[in-house]
Amino acid sequence: MKFELLKTTGHARRGRLTLNHGCVETPIFMPVGTYGTVKGVTPQSLEDMGAQIILGNTFHLWMRPGLEVIGLFKGLHGFEKWSKPILTDSGGFQVWSLGAMRKISEEGVKFSSPVNGDKLFLTPEISIQIQTTLNSDIVMQFDECTPYEINGVLTSEKDARSSMELSLRWAKRCREEFSRLENPNALFGIVQGGMFENLREESLSALVEMDLPGYAVGGVSVGEPKDEMLRIMAHTPHRLPPNKPRYLMGVGTPEDLVAGVQSGVDMFDCVMPTRNARNGHYFTRFGDLKIRNARYKADLLPIDPTCSCYTCAGTTHAGGFSRAYLHHLDRCGEMLGPMLASIHNLHYFLNLTKEMREALDADNFCAFTTQFHANRSRGI
Amino acid sequence: MKFELLKTTGHARRGRLTLNHGCVETPIFMPVGTYGTVKGVTPQSLEDMGAQIILGNTFHLWMRPGLEVIGLFKGLHGFEKWSKPILTDSGGFQVWSLGAMRKISEEGVKFSSPVNGDKLFLTPEISIQIQTTLNSDIVMQFDECTPYEINGVLTSEKDARSSMELSLRWAKRCREEFSRLENPNALFGIVQGGMFENLREESLSALVEMDLPGYAVGGVSVGEPKDEMLRIMAHTPHRLPPNKPRYLMGVGTPEDLVAGVQSGVDMFDCVMPTRNARNGHYFTRFGDLKIRNARYKADLLPIDPTCSCYTCAGTTHAGGFSRAYLHHLDRCGEMLGPMLASIHNLHYFLNLTKEMREALDADNFCAFTTQFHANRSRGI
Repeated sequence: MKFELLKTTGHARRGRLTLNHGCVETPIFMPVGTYGTVKGVTPQSLEDMGAQIILGNTFHLWMRPGLEVIGLFKGLHGFEKWSKPILTDSGGFQVWSLGAMRKISEEGVKFSSPVNGDKLFLTPEISIQIQTTLNSDIVMQFDECTPYEINGVLTSEKDARSSMELSLRWAKRCREEFSRLENPNALFGIVQGGMFENLREESLSALVEMDLPGYAVGGVSVGEPKDEMLRIMAHTPHRLPPNKPRYLMGVGTPEDLVAGVQSGVDMFDCVMPTRNARNGHYFTRFGDLKIRNARYKADLLPIDPTCSCYTCAGTTHAGGFSRAYLHHLDRCGEMLGPMLASIHNLHYFLNLTKEMREALDADNFCAFTTQFHANRSRGI
Repeated sequence: MKFELLKTTGHARRGRLTLNHGCVETPIFMPVGTYGTVKGVTPQSLEDMGAQIILGNTFHLWMRPGLEVIGLFKGLHGFEKWSKPILTDSGGFQVWSLGAMRKISEEGVKFSSPVNGDKLFLTPEISIQIQTTLNSDIVMQFDECTPYEINGVLTSEKDARSSMELSLRWAKRCREEFSRLENPNALFGIVQGGMFENLREESLSALVEMDLPGYAVGGVSVGEPKDEMLRIMAHTPHRLPPNKPRYLMGVGTPEDLVAGVQSGVDMFDCVMPTRNARNGHYFTRFGDLKIRNARYKADLLPIDPTCSCYTCAGTTHAGGFSRAYLHHLDRCGEMLGPMLASIHNLHYFLNLTKEMREALDADNFCAFTTQFHANRSRGI
């Protein structure tokens, strides 16, 4: 893996990541393909909309179809027919999300398979073994996600510290397994520490000492209030080594992406574009639009007349789809509704990061952010 | 409308239909787009797979979004962004299917809207008015579909005769309304008569006397045994005027399409490719394949290695999707599963009619049908 820092404006960065399956221009948004498919879109459509790297979820793919099947394809790329880079998470967040169904120890996490009830054990070593079979370009360390609160009680600094320290010990075990397996890809470490800036700094220092090829900020977007998320986003990323890529996990809204880049983040992922699409929630340059609203019943305009996605602009033959048509598809429960909404929303998120890259290239990132906020609050 | 009969081999015909929105090479399969969308595929994808004409359902579109909305788009083409020809049915079959919820009289059919319970009335005149607003290239007459049986009792010849004669009177009312409205498209008549060949011949003669631009065979594929359907298919189509297009409504399997062309049919429609796709049922040259079957869990082959659809052959970048991957998508309930199955099945039906056209052009239709049956029974 190679990372070139092409330009810096304040904390904001323009970079280029070279991975085993290709190049990624940063800042970048990464569509989420949990089960080996970005929900509701074909790989061809992802390419058409300019996706450069997508995610896969280690935990889900381990459950279904399982490693034996993915091994036959020599990794996730061949299985899902995506030839550009892939990043996989470690499965840590998913087993943590199982709540009462899992038990965390120093060794790893014991849990029952939500698919068939089998007793399973996920450890840093096993996570790296799975990700090695997946052959993802970017491998994430196995970590424990520090909760924001448990049953309404905020996580104490003491608990956040032991959680963060456990993640650090797991990071070291991940690195050992990663090099024992001679995994040819790039292992990223994950900064934890909950909402405590001093813990974030300790986590960061220890990880930087490990000299990993890239770093993520984890444990955000886990149920904390928005201002807490923004506080950590403003605190941590720019403290990471400037010559390494920085990934903010699970974030977020278009506004979060812009704030993230301003805070020095290079990479984002979030299920929001596709999940919201399935509920008829469209993101646009001029604010969001709920297509279910009766006001769109006879609206001849496309979702966003300035958007160049297939949903809004169509092909050269026929122009884009109207809000009235998309409203109708939603009302009839037609599959084409979520399909077109997913195309639009993913295109919007990808295009937003593209516009940020262009603004950074042209040295007008500050003007871009002003215009971005004015546009978004204008209303569609 | 113009119909050119390019070549005849036995009853089988190679033709070309010129409609207001373009040319249709026959024999042709027409994908069904009930609510203004062929379920699970984009208009772009339909074009890519060679669709030349698609269906819309008058009854469904009248219910939702309603004529007021479609009128804003000056018809169905603009609403659903499909620029090639469209055929609409008359709504007759759908109101007939409402069973106890409707009452048929000389004037038309009274029924309760299945969407909101409103009392509605559909007549030959109203059906033509709706289809004129839809601006479909081919308008179907409003008819009464003669049932095969009611509560296990076969329809008598007497009942089949009165039903057939009602449809004839409705055909005349349709023609009058069609010309009163100066509808610029083509009105097709529908031969009825149930399972009685003498009634079919009477219906046909009376319709031919009306000199309509095209004719359909209706009242098949309505629950009758397969051999009854094949008997009517062998009886009626070739008796229709040779210089007019012939459409067999609601049929059928790949074997039915080949038998239909052998019997002199030019046009087919059926929901089977898309409906079966949503249940993981793939049609192929070498027989059908149920992707849910566990035998495909680790199968690296595409659905049909000889198929050139996106699902089987992919793009130049990456090759086609494997059965193992499609099995996995089905098992996980991922939307991409029905999307890729719909692309494949529609492509298969469209390609089958394309191969029949090519065989007719090359004067080897007989050899084609022999090979077709050998291939289909070979097994995939």
